[in-house]
Amino acid sequence: MHVTLPDGKQLDLPQGATALDAARAIGPRLAGDALAATANGDLVDLMSPLPDGASITLITKKNPAEAAPLFRHSLGHVMSQAVGEFYRAKGYGPQDIKRGVGPSIENGWYQDFDLPEPLREEDLPEIERIMREIIGRGLDFSRREVSKDEALAQFPHDPYKAELIRELPDDEAITLYQQGDYVDLCRGPHFPNTGKLPAAFKLMSTSGAYWRGNEKNPILQRIYGVAFATGKELDGYLERLEEARRRDHRKLGRELELFTIDPMVGKGLPLWLPNGTVLREELSRFLKEQQFQRGYQGVVTPNIGNLDLFRTSGHYPYYAESQFNPIDVDDEQYMLKPMNCPFHVRIYASKPRSYRDLPVRLAEFGTVYRYEMSGELNGLTRVRGFTQDDGHIFARPDQLKKEFLDVLDLTVFVLKTFGMEDVRFRVGVRDPESDKYVGSPENWDTAERGIMEAVEEVGLPYAVEPGDAAFYGPKLDFIVKDVLGREWQLGTIQVDYNLPERFDISYVGEDGQDHRPVMIHRAPFGSLERFVGILIEHYGGDFPLWLAPRQVVVIPIADRHIPYAETLASEFKAAGMRAEVDDSANRMNAKVRTAELSKIPVMLIVGDQEEARREVSVRERTPEGHKERKGVDFAGLLAELGERVRTRD
Amino acid sequence: MHVTLPDGKQLDLPQGATALDAARAIGPRLAGDALAATANGDLVDLMSPLPDGASITLITKKNPAEAAPLFRHSLGHVMSQAVGEFYRAKGYGPQDIKRGVGPSIENGWYQDFDLPEPLREEDLPEIERIMREIIGRGLDFSRREVSKDEALAQFPHDPYKAELIRELPDDEAITLYQQGDYVDLCRGPHFPNTGKLPAAFKLMSTSGAYWRGNEKNPILQRIYGVAFATGKELDGYLERLEEARRRDHRKLGRELELFTIDPMVGKGLPLWLPNGTVLREELSRFLKEQQFQRGYQGVVTPNIGNLDLFRTSGHYPYYAESQFNPIDVDDEQYMLKPMNCPFHVRIYASKPRSYRDLPVRLAEFGTVYRYEMSGELNGLTRVRGFTQDDGHIFARPDQLKKEFLDVLDLTVFVLKTFGMEDVRFRVGVRDPESDKYVGSPENWDTAERGIMEAVEEVGLPYAVEPGDAAFYGPKLDFIVKDVLGREWQLGTIQVDYNLPERFDISYVGEDGQDHRPVMIHRAPFGSLERFVGILIEHYGGDFPLWLAPRQVVVIPIADRHIPYAETLASEFKAAGMRAEVDDSANRMNAKVRTAELSKIPVMLIVGDQEEARREVSVRERTPEGHKERKGVDFAGLLAELGERVRTRD
Repeated sequence: MHVTLPDGKQLDLPQGATALDAARAIGPRLAGDALAATANGDLVDLMSPLPDGASITLITKKNPAEAAPLFRHSLGHVMSQAVGEFYRAKGYGPQDIKRGVGPSIENGWYQDFDLPEPLREEDLPEIERIMREIIGRGLDFSRREVSKDEALAQFPHDPYKAELIRELPDDEAITLYQQGDYVDLCRGPHFPNTGKLPAAFKLMSTSGAYWRGNEKNPILQRIYGVAFATGKELDGYLERLEEARRRDHRKLGRELELFTIDPMVGKGLPLWLPNGTVLREELSRFLKEQQFQRGYQGVVTPNIGNLDLFRTSGHYPYYAESQFNPIDVDDEQYMLKPMNCPFHVRIYASKPRSYRDLPVRLAEFGTVYRYEMSGELNGLTRVRGFTQDDGHIFARPDQLKKEFLDVLDLTVFVLKTFGMEDVRFRVGVRDPESDKYVGSPENWDTAERGIMEAVEEVGLPYAVEPGDAAFYGPKLDFIVKDVLGREWQLGTIQVDYNLPERFDISYVGEDGQDHRPVMIHRAPFGSLERFVGILIEHYGGDFPLWLAPRQVVVIPIADRHIPYAETLASEFKAAGMRAEVDDSANRMNAKVRTAELSKIPVMLIVGDQEEARREVSVRERTPEGHKERKGVDFAGLLAELGERVRTRD
Repeated sequence: MHVTLPDGKQLDLPQGATALDAARAIGPRLAGDALAATANGDLVDLMSPLPDGASITLITKKNPAEAAPLFRHSLGHVMSQAVGEFYRAKGYGPQDIKRGVGPSIENGWYQDFDLPEPLREEDLPEIERIMREIIGRGLDFSRREVSKDEALAQFPHDPYKAELIRELPDDEAITLYQQGDYVDLCRGPHFPNTGKLPAAFKLMSTSGAYWRGNEKNPILQRIYGVAFATGKELDGYLERLEEARRRDHRKLGRELELFTIDPMVGKGLPLWLPNGTVLREELSRFLKEQQFQRGYQGVVTPNIGNLDLFRTSGHYPYYAESQFNPIDVDDEQYMLKPMNCPFHVRIYASKPRSYRDLPVRLAEFGTVYRYEMSGELNGLTRVRGFTQDDGHIFARPDQLKKEFLDVLDLTVFVLKTFGMEDVRFRVGVRDPESDKYVGSPENWDTAERGIMEAVEEVGLPYAVEPGDAAFYGPKLDFIVKDVLGREWQLGTIQVDYNLPERFDISYVGEDGQDHRPVMIHRAPFGSLERFVGILIEHYGGDFPLWLAPRQVVVIPIADRHIPYAETLASEFKAAGMRAEVDDSANRMNAKVRTAELSKIPVMLIVGDQEEARREVSVRERTPEGHKERKGVDFAGLLAELGERVRTRD
């Protein structure tokens, strides 16, 4: 057999040769440095036979990050070995430790165990210590192919391995990997030697996991680890993780008193506390202003509707399993609305429309209810009731592209207002294999083409995802990257030729004939709940002044300054700003600390001198830390902050 | 026997004497002028025996309005006779006309008939003509007492009369009244003679009515009439009726495109069209601003809640029949919320509260759902889903009176903003006979006393209504009189010691102990739906500028002025005002007429001269008609109108 090297050179090798054989054929030094290889672009280990004719590259310790999935997987085996030794030291035998699966995952790996006594979080450092010891032993990873019977004989006490082995096809080669006395059933690939594994790893946590994900099976203990090629990368990862934890919207939601979820009220049904309500109101006002300028008209529709409405729209029974059960009312059935669109269609249909009236742009902050399994619920980002910043445009076909572009423009403007500059589009089109779509293929073609043209015109990056369309039409999702580099799917735009058909709506054209309008569904925020959840994490609770639930706190240095402080707060309030006085018995420094913890963007400290001159000392939170200004004229500051709020600066 | 006259004089009369006998005893002239009498304050006719010892007054043709219920009832008999003659002229016999009940009602009377062929609305003038003829005949009303058998013999062909007579107690005197050949079973009282009945009457309409109000019984035809002592009063009444019809919120709601009720969406579930949504939004913004200044905090809660929440609050099952059925969700039950209060209580309970934190004032425009029978539904004033401008104040007992007063002040301010100056209160307290109330009598006493003191302090008229309290506490309703003199029940304030108990909420007092707060429920508008319905009728659709859904229309005199008109509309829009251009092909006068019909408060007419000078001709709707101004500087007008909107002038 032969393989091709990156420089195009061919290397003749014996049948069944491995990447290590190839490295040795090139030179002993490379053989010593090699960590892994790629064959025809796939990552492979040094111990597996190469396919005949493969193009190969060798990965060495100069660029170990390229072999990350391999060293993560190998560290999983080392951890598994270390757990065995940990329990052996406690007097257990190998038959007491059984193992489920243990794949490499993003940033690390996990391994499931059935242990004689549960591993505690406090044991993880000891496991890590044993792992480092095993790494120090410099054990080779070896690979061998065995028969099913040999494989079964290898794990006489492990019912999980046995179950996996028995399910393998009879004619397939089963591979075992071994380092030291630890053997595991594994497809590989692996690092060549424990001594070459990076030291930059950390065991993160343990959790319960059902064997094969089935809740009828025994629950195993899963241990997670992360690993990187360098300590710097590991530290960066752990810092980002800690930052994400600090920014977790459930944690900040509690600390900043934004929302709460109360089991007595119901699962997945957030109660918006006063501070969170300010966020909702400011967001709504902002978008309503934009929509007013762009020719949208507000409407309000009920939270329930006759089931016939949803039968006509097709939402029922198509999506029955993600909806709440219908309610019997007299001899009719009503349902909590899962969508606002059927209502807006009926408003369109409530009077005759002429071609001159189009486009009709209807918008509503409409609260909808969808059933989610209770295990899926999560803070504000996965709920059972949420308010969509919903809107529907009824347009003539010749207006579709312009309207679609206007919506793209609005949405990008909205996202940029929140500093979300890193936006890309995902265009969801039909899965050509599926028949779940309603509406004619011609209409789908026109709609998909319209979206693509508009997206091209805007010039932001996009990807086309076949099969990602809604059942009633193609769609465009906005994906934004937050400051931590995490991607969020936000607003959606959907073109819809289907609902106008189902509700048989029309307009009278210039020709005096009835024509069918096309609909665009759009929601720049998506849902207020989800958007606020994301904003909390995006800003880490440090909202810009206009959004901040608590904008200004006035801190009197002594009790005698309270009346002056209250005058200032009243003036802010009269100007529509949210100001308060900390008149608690605490000392000034404690008050400043309290305000810091509440992330109030502007602190005004007032004492004798400030009061005498109608001034304030200003302490503002900034991304860099603080900005302090002393002896600031109050009237000027009031105007300055008012202007910042007004312009949403 | 004797009776006492108004001047204190006693009149001796034979046993069984009537008011006519009394009048004759005084003098023949009075006997001729008398129309009716009062005996011990009750209106009686001249033909019925007076009770011995009664104080009587005689009503003569000088003050016939005092006898209105009598002449209305007698006109009902005359109508009934006229209907008989109308059908006799068509060849039917007396056995073909059967009669249900025929009482006098406010402003008139009605009479139910079972007729051989339905009476058409067009027949009413002919019935009126026959009535006037019967009045001209000067027939005496006579009264006689008969036995049950005699009464039955009187109506051999009328099963309705027979049914009524058979149900009368055996020992009770049955009275018949007769004028001419028309005899009716009747308790009276009546006028003495058809010739003395006023000519100021009118037959209004016919409708269907089940016999005895039971839908299992045959449906009868009901004819309504109204009557007054003078033609002037009748004309006034008909004008007010016509004005009420013109102002009917269902009619204006349709004409001004404010809302629609769509059977496909559901009964009692209004869809708010763009113009109506503006009203809702402006009202919400207005109240939110007021509430912000008064220290309220906004909250948002879901439209459904776990049934346990309502079990704890006591709303379920107490009020189950006025609520929608629960929805099964997994192993729980949820219900559309009929009230917001339990949610606000849970928000109060979401963190520890100290005496320093109180009062906590939570406010929400919360949409609630209550079951009403479909026959009870009516436009916006009786619906199944509505948005309350709800708020709950959690206060220390020592804060109750001040908070109650603040709420009274807010509500009166709100109503006066809409020109509702004629406000009175209705204080609902316990019915001492009923045991439907929850909570201790001591708490009820304290709450009722608190309300009364606050009301006394405000100094507006009030009435105390025992039995009008909610099951959970006493309440105060606002009753306002609209421009047509009709009374509406608007906002409600309720003191509640009960929910705090049921939810076991508390605050830590100055003494370090837990104390129970008291709650105030309040909703100045009551419900947005009902309030908008009332406002539509109150203003007759002529909303003040700040509320008007369409504020300004710019009318270009010729097509060449359209670009200028559009510039002006854009400037209004940029200033947040609702302006549009009528660029239709219609002529200017037609455009003005269209704007008039749409009740747009400001029309700006622009032609060559206006464009050249950047001016406008202004035509404003006023209560008196119109105000026109020519050659008005546009920038000045924009500022002027902006200021009027800002100050809600």
